[in-house]
Amino acid sequence: MVRIIEVGPRDGLQNERETISLSARLDLIFALAEAGLAEQEFGSFVSPKAVPQMAGTDEVAAGLPTGLTGWALVPNVKGMERALASGCRNAALFTAASEDFVQANIRMSIAESLEVFAEAAGLFRSRVPEGRLRGIVSTAFECPFVGRVDPEAAVAVAHELLELGVDEVVLADTIGTAGPSEVKRLAAAASDIPKEKLAWHFHDTRGTAVANVWTCLELGYRSFDSAAGGLGGCPFAPGAGGNLATEDLVYLLEREGFRTGVDLELLARATLPVLDLLGREPESKVQRAVLAGRS
Amino acid sequence: MVRIIEVGPRDGLQNERETISLSARLDLIFALAEAGLAEQEFGSFVSPKAVPQMAGTDEVAAGLPTGLTGWALVPNVKGMERALASGCRNAALFTAASEDFVQANIRMSIAESLEVFAEAAGLFRSRVPEGRLRGIVSTAFECPFVGRVDPEAAVAVAHELLELGVDEVVLADTIGTAGPSEVKRLAAAASDIPKEKLAWHFHDTRGTAVANVWTCLELGYRSFDSAAGGLGGCPFAPGAGGNLATEDLVYLLEREGFRTGVDLELLARATLPVLDLLGREPESKVQRAVLAGRS
Repeated sequence: MVRIIEVGPRDGLQNERETISLSARLDLIFALAEAGLAEQEFGSFVSPKAVPQMAGTDEVAAGLPTGLTGWALVPNVKGMERALASGCRNAALFTAASEDFVQANIRMSIAESLEVFAEAAGLFRSRVPEGRLRGIVSTAFECPFVGRVDPEAAVAVAHELLELGVDEVVLADTIGTAGPSEVKRLAAAASDIPKEKLAWHFHDTRGTAVANVWTCLELGYRSFDSAAGGLGGCPFAPGAGGNLATEDLVYLLEREGFRTGVDLELLARATLPVLDLLGREPESKVQRAVLAGRS
Repeated sequence: MVRIIEVGPRDGLQNERETISLSARLDLIFALAEAGLAEQEFGSFVSPKAVPQMAGTDEVAAGLPTGLTGWALVPNVKGMERALASGCRNAALFTAASEDFVQANIRMSIAESLEVFAEAAGLFRSRVPEGRLRGIVSTAFECPFVGRVDPEAAVAVAHELLELGVDEVVLADTIGTAGPSEVKRLAAAASDIPKEKLAWHFHDTRGTAVANVWTCLELGYRSFDSAAGGLGGCPFAPGAGGNLATEDLVYLLEREGFRTGVDLELLARATLPVLDLLGREPESKVQRAVLAGRS
């Protein structure tokens, strides 16, 4: 069994120019849950001034489908307070492997971001001891400002997050440039971290995401983030592709004999209303093949 | 060094509803050559009644860029006569691993197609002894009519082609369904064929082509077909994606340290006029990332 964490409702929508209504966000989440995506990153408790697309995540949290494992992205202690007040039992905190990226993104050093992280994690644990925490390491492969990232630097941050008590670390190819050899090198550097404590988050900006997932599968990793419809354009390359498409991930997994519990027909249709609102075509090859096969 | 055989001007255009003019076809070939694609399947000597998009391939052959290694697809003895009369020094003959596919495609059994193949190959050898022949095994993984193909069946056809004296065999995932494990199984079944005598032809209909190429690279294979811009929609799934995009292949290769001699900037622009004529958006993730990076 492979675990898919659907991030379309958060990572997929947060960079869009169009702000999607709360009801459309919830409709998307329900359609994805209906297709079998039982774990979803449903929103972010960032400042609505900074990321207007994620305003009202409190209300989304209150309206989630029964039985869904919902993850909320939390940037800081204030965000954690909001997440907890909304009843969130699973939170994702983030930092990055590149100093320049953290500076540009949240105006802190990595060390400062880890202090914030520790405080937010402590608050979370004190209030939801049975809850789960993810720690996301952005730019684990490459940074848009300084280029390739040393795998040891990414793994050092992963270790700090694990010491702060996160249940799993997410290694993210934020700008979607990595190839399979880089996945192998990072996995080798992280070989002392138990495999069930690592998840992988690939962007498919340059068509390598499925090959990277396959490399992870061969190494024994079983947790992947993805976004239905390939939502989530990269802010550093407007017009370019976004996250690894969940449809493409599911196809690979099922073809390779891993069960996902996802219905590809339902999944292929789940993002159509949002894509329509955004004025976008499906990014996912599998989604398009499935939709074409039905026509 | 990895060898890329650009098939966009043939496999990429042959199924299009719009017929592209001879000058637009030649412009595409020249732009691709300019980008560094020194080997191209430039057309097909099929009946212009059956495939009007490939009418006039004789004239294309006469106008090819100096220095290009041009491959012509040849379906039968009559096509070989035309190819030879046009001065072709490299010809690709095809059959398939699935009886049903050969029947549907050229109304013969595999054995009958091999007899035609032998006659056409003999004619080619007698007239161009120093020329090169490829033998294409379509549906080497799966057939749209009967499903999965036994790797041993595909390899048996490959052996017959090699006995007929082809210089290389192309194993084709015609409908773009295969995953990396199937590549491994087919490669294992073909392990007694020297690696330099096998090329791989993937369609990216379901997003697995790059992962399949990577699997081949790890196994030591170094020859791949691809189509710039991801041209080449599948006739069995209208609207679905086409061939492995050359841009995506080049990105993977260069990122993994293989030199290709291809200029991605020039390549990303090479198909724009044809895409415009066809009223299509670029299929290639890398092409879109490159074009987005320039805007």
